[in-house]
Amino acid sequence: MIYITRKERFNAAHRLYRADYSDEKNYEVFGKCSNPNWHGHNYYLHVTVKGNVNPETGFLVNLTSLSKVINERVINKIDHKNMNIEVDFMLERLASTENLAIAIWEQLEEPIKEIGAQLHCVKITETENNFVEYYGNK
Amino acid sequence: MIYITRKERFNAAHRLYRADYSDEKNYEVFGKCSNPNWHGHNYYLHVTVKGNVNPETGFLVNLTSLSKVINERVINKIDHKNMNIEVDFMLERLASTENLAIAIWEQLEEPIKEIGAQLHCVKITETENNFVEYYGNK
Amino acid sequence: MIYITRKERFNAAHRLYRADYSDEKNYEVFGKCSNPNWHGHNYYLHVTVKGNVNPETGFLVNLTSLSKVINERVINKIDHKNMNIEVDFMLERLASTENLAIAIWEQLEEPIKEIGAQLHCVKITETENNFVEYYGNK
Amino acid sequence: MIYITRKERFNAAHRLYRADYSDEKNYEVFGKCSNPNWHGHNYYLHVTVKGNVNPETGFLVNLTSLSKVINERVINKIDHKNMNIEVDFMLERLASTENLAIAIWEQLEEPIKEIGAQLHCVKITETENNFVEYYGNK
Amino acid sequence: MIYITRKERFNAAHRLYRADYSDEKNYEVFGKCSNPNWHGHNYYLHVTVKGNVNPETGFLVNLTSLSKVINERVINKIDHKNMNIEVDFMLERLASTENLAIAIWEQLEEPIKEIGAQLHCVKITETENNFVEYYGNK
Amino acid sequence: MIYITRKERFNAAHRLYRADYSDEKNYEVFGKCSNPNWHGHNYYLHVTVKGNVNPETGFLVNLTSLSKVINERVINKIDHKNMNIEVDFMLERLASTENLAIAIWEQLEEPIKEIGAQLHCVKITETENNFVEYYGNK
Repeated sequence: MIYITRKERFNAAHRLYRADYSDEKNYEVFGKCSNPNWHGHNYYLHVTVKGNVNPETGFLVNLTSLSKVINERVINKIDHKNMNIEVDFMLERLASTENLAIAIWEQLEEPIKEIGAQLHCVKITETENNFVEYYGNK
Repeated sequence: MIYITRKERFNAAHRLYRADYSDEKNYEVFGKCSNPNWHGHNYYLHVTVKGNVNPETGFLVNLTSLSKVINERVINKIDHKNMNIEVDFMLERLASTENLAIAIWEQLEEPIKEIGAQLHCVKITETENNFVEYYGNK
Repeated sequence: MIYITRKERFNAAHRLYRADYSDEKNYEVFGKCSNPNWHGHNYYLHVTVKGNVNPETGFLVNLTSLSKVINERVINKIDHKNMNIEVDFMLERLASTENLAIAIWEQLEEPIKEIGAQLHCVKITETENNFVEYYGNK
Repeated sequence: MIYITRKERFNAAHRLYRADYSDEKNYEVFGKCSNPNWHGHNYYLHVTVKGNVNPETGFLVNLTSLSKVINERVINKIDHKNMNIEVDFMLERLASTENLAIAIWEQLEEPIKEIGAQLHCVKITETENNFVEYYGNK
Repeated sequence: MIYITRKERFNAAHRLYRADYSDEKNYEVFGKCSNPNWHGHNYYLHVTVKGNVNPETGFLVNLTSLSKVINERVINKIDHKNMNIEVDFMLERLASTENLAIAIWEQLEEPIKEIGAQLHCVKITETENNFVEYYGNK
Repeated sequence: MIYITRKERFNAAHRLYRADYSDEKNYEVFGKCSNPNWHGHNYYLHVTVKGNVNPETGFLVNLTSLSKVINERVINKIDHKNMNIEVDFMLERLASTENLAIAIWEQLEEPIKEIGAQLHCVKITETENNFVEYYGNK
């Protein structure tokens, strides 16, 4: 078993809030991340997959294929977008980094199987001071 | 003459567009940065000031004072905000990195004189692949 | 189960030595880190906690609360200090990065439970060439 | 149990290809990494070892000893070399990052035992967009 | 006058040597960089251009156009290549970082004028410990 | 004219204070950097030299020679030391980053001439949030 990680980037706007909270309550719970006019980040996405090395190619998985999957399923949908109102896999969720990691896991788990690997970890870095890691529902 | 630089950070939403352009024209000129629902970045701001070393303190300028000026005049106004609609010094400008650097220079030039230094350069890093530097109107 | 990591920074002086060793023996075992007049580092502290996402907030834990705990229990005590002679949780220990990680774990384990999460890992980066990770006594 | 990681660097040339493939087939499978005239990278190697803290020194393992092992067994053999034709531990293998990580594990596992620690992970970063981790044959 | 910088990356093999030197002499002058079987690097290229902000777009130059020029004239020719034997603009030159910066300047000066800006600086980072800057022949 | 920069690192303890100030006055002027028991940093030193490319070697200056000068004149004296009491070129100076940059310039200006280059800039990075640049007495 070996692990390989691909890093991708996207820039997006978001807002942390609940429609059933008042603005004051939203500010109390979510702080300046609740700003009604949005704010945004340069996100880094690290996708780690695991599996065995193919003795013919020396690859666990071809990184070009892995990058293609991540771009089709995640980056093209979220880059330079507003994740609260334009990103199909985030529409029903509070736009926290935790929920974003879980949603991206759900986007990637199956297509990564199809290219012969197993999704191990989705890591999202929102600022240089915090990141979230999700290893699936276990 | 010596130069000292202070790095600060802010996260903001923005959109590159002209109201007098159609959506198609905006997309043609500004690309995905023209997305009507905004996107955002983690911006890095480097402020470089110059002057002579004070022989009593060994400082060109006290970094705590410099940071205070930058926070009061720039960071507190723009962090976790939408720069097109909430940031006084950007309201009348197209929200490009070039214009942002010029606007921040105008915010900082005078207050930095008041703490005994001279503004030398405003540098804005928008993504890891591009940054703008402005040295004043010369 | 999801994991979230908060990065904090501190600058401190230290010295690696044993009082029951001669200077020569200290130099032999600890190298230039045994310098009697101290030296210092910019330390990075990564604190990883784990738990479930709160469906109401989308948070595992509020990062502001996590940062507050880390600052109160660790950063305020050690930043710009000499860890051998001024930091209560290091006074009885050899000031190695390994011992520092264990001591910080002990400082953080209980208070992190009180904010509703479980401490998973304490990581200390001393220079860009080495870091220590501690996952608790198991 | 505690974990300590040492980072080392090397620059090397390589080529991904199979002698039993045509140039076209090599390009199809390995892309521009199959360039017959080689290309190269600045590689980062992170070696993580685990064990207990020695109460006399506060160390899991002396980092100078660990660095010496890594340099003797890996860096001195591969730095500023062509890994396909000059590096003994890579001669019989396809020069993928996956195989490189496995080969370095084999170089380091025994000598790290001899300095009193246990090899936990070999991580190779080839570009800022991908890295491989190997935890041994399990 | 404002300055904007675009960062691009390429991976290449090279060798520092003179055909009119013996292997011993090459090693004496160029050290391990003279290895006859090549070695390689992940290079970072920063291209800084200067000019005035276009009041209609807020841009000094469209970064997409600048990136296109750099890719056509430099990156596509050198990425995953051997710069001593495959890169037209380096064929007649000793493959030092200094000469590479000068050669890239010559590749870029005219095409950057054509997109309405003026080349200010070519910076090449070869490893994290050294970089070269060239501001043209003045 | 071309510019080449070499990066070196050192770890050191220091304290900002004046013996003719009270502890209160020192704290007022220098903040927590005045801690009587010292603190420390991982410093980065960038030394930029300028000159013409030697057509025989393609080098402005051999980086091995440049690194040797910097190590002999600066790093060996200050690494893992207390700059207020052990570093000859800092003994008579307040240990600010500004004064450190000027002192290092004085250490390096002549020896760099002897290896055929001209010192252009000394840059000291004390933390990730501040750095000082000195271009000599002009």
